Amino acid sequence: MSSTADLSLSALPEFPEVQAGDDLAVLVMERLGSAGWTLRDGDVLVVAQKVVSKAEGRRVDLAEIVPSARAIALAERVAKDARLVELILSESRRVVRTARDVLIVEHRLGFIMANAGVDQSNVASRKGDENWALLLPENPDASAERLRSSIAAQSGRSVGIIINDSFGRPWRVGTVGVAIGVAGWPAILDLRGQPDRFGRTLRVTVVGHADEIAAAASLLMGQSSEGRPVVLVRGLMPAAPPSDGKALLRPAAEDLFR
Amino acid sequence: MSSTADLSLSALPEFPEVQAGDDLAVLVMERLGSAGWTLRDGDVLVVAQKVVSKAEGRRVDLAEIVPSARAIALAERVAKDARLVELILSESRRVVRTARDVLIVEHRLGFIMANAGVDQSNVASRKGDENWALLLPENPDASAERLRSSIAAQSGRSVGIIINDSFGRPWRVGTVGVAIGVAGWPAILDLRGQPDRFGRTLRVTVVGHADEIAAAASLLMGQSSEGRPVVLVRGLMPAAPPSDGKALLRPAAEDLFR
Repeated sequence: MSSTADLSLSALPEFPEVQAGDDLAVLVMERLGSAGWTLRDGDVLVVAQKVVSKAEGRRVDLAEIVPSARAIALAERVAKDARLVELILSESRRVVRTARDVLIVEHRLGFIMANAGVDQSNVASRKGDENWALLLPENPDASAERLRSSIAAQSGRSVGIIINDSFGRPWRVGTVGVAIGVAGWPAILDLRGQPDRFGRTLRVTVVGHADEIAAAASLLMGQSSEGRPVVLVRGLMPAAPPSDGKALLRPAAEDLFR
Repeated sequence: MSSTADLSLSALPEFPEVQAGDDLAVLVMERLGSAGWTLRDGDVLVVAQKVVSKAEGRRVDLAEIVPSARAIALAERVAKDARLVELILSESRRVVRTARDVLIVEHRLGFIMANAGVDQSNVASRKGDENWALLLPENPDASAERLRSSIAAQSGRSVGIIINDSFGRPWRVGTVGVAIGVAGWPAILDLRGQPDRFGRTLRVTVVGHADEIAAAASLLMGQSSEGRPVVLVRGLMPAAPPSDGKALLRPAAEDLFR
């Protein structure tokens, strides 16, 4: 492996409010420059899903959504806005679990998550403008790759990009940061077959590497009024090939909790 | 909140092989001293479960285990050593899922995890000495609190302690670090009721804070031959009261995936 003895994480200061059509790579390079930071090969930039979605214009006006009968019935069961439920269903392959205030689905991209990632917090452009919702990026791995290649072109540096979001999980309380899009960096580290320090072959040895980075960055991003949507991670040295975020999705046939 | 703009993580160098009866607080203070590091109030030390278990003498000789008929039948189904399965069952409240090579249980402490955390890698004292297994600490929150108070007494500093382990999870590939014991630090951050930046009240806003720290530290610990079982995390500023690791366990009544 792969790991290092020191790791630093820094949130880019004063990241601006992102609008549809903004070029995130340009914004990131500007903020890095203003802060006097220079990218190095092997740096990882973790970018909050929310700003990627905003830049890609994934904001939806709920007033334009006409809920189906199915969405209306489901909305009653989960005590949510039927237009929001319609939007969630339109982003989903199937409903996994429901309860009051809980709607867990399989997103069309394969993520098992609450509300298909459709979010209403920190979405409005101004206070009182509350009828908006924000969808996940169309293809977060592709978004990460675009950002990676654009930053590589502007900086001359080879950096990893991880787009993160906060997911709840079964059995444990609270959300944690997870990687929904990855480019230029290993999403998983497969240590199977490597010996432990006593020569025994390691057994459970696939590590959700990009999810651990996503969680670490989430510690700095904050969840409420402070906007710190981009975190620079320095000091990782993965000895594994890059893989995309889909590598973190367990195939249905291997999943015991469907 | 609560978060900060910069975070550093450093693995304590040259941490020795831990033996039953070792005083981990003394070992940690010695390593900090040798490295020339001084603890500060608000630092968090993340300690790998494995060294806590070793210090507490939680190593078990499989040769002394006589498997029950139930363990023998289950061992056949999951293709594991029946003595190991007996040990796993003795640490568990119930079996949650089984498949070939997979035995997921509810640990007696409430963790839903593979093999009740019973581990055979990096446990032997010497190569070839393969009949040993390592159990979780008897009470990881109590272990964390003992370590916290002993380090506070020796250093005069108020630090948080998180004992971490690597857990698999449903739906996603790979293990991630999670907190199984917490002392002197908030395990969760409850942001419910706080406004987002546009004045909307945040909805899904309980953060698995100690799990995110545990995952971040796991990036440095390595999984194979390199032993870096203690990571110093500096720069967190949680605005929440301390809670123990049990705060991260979702009550059965609220869990949709039992």
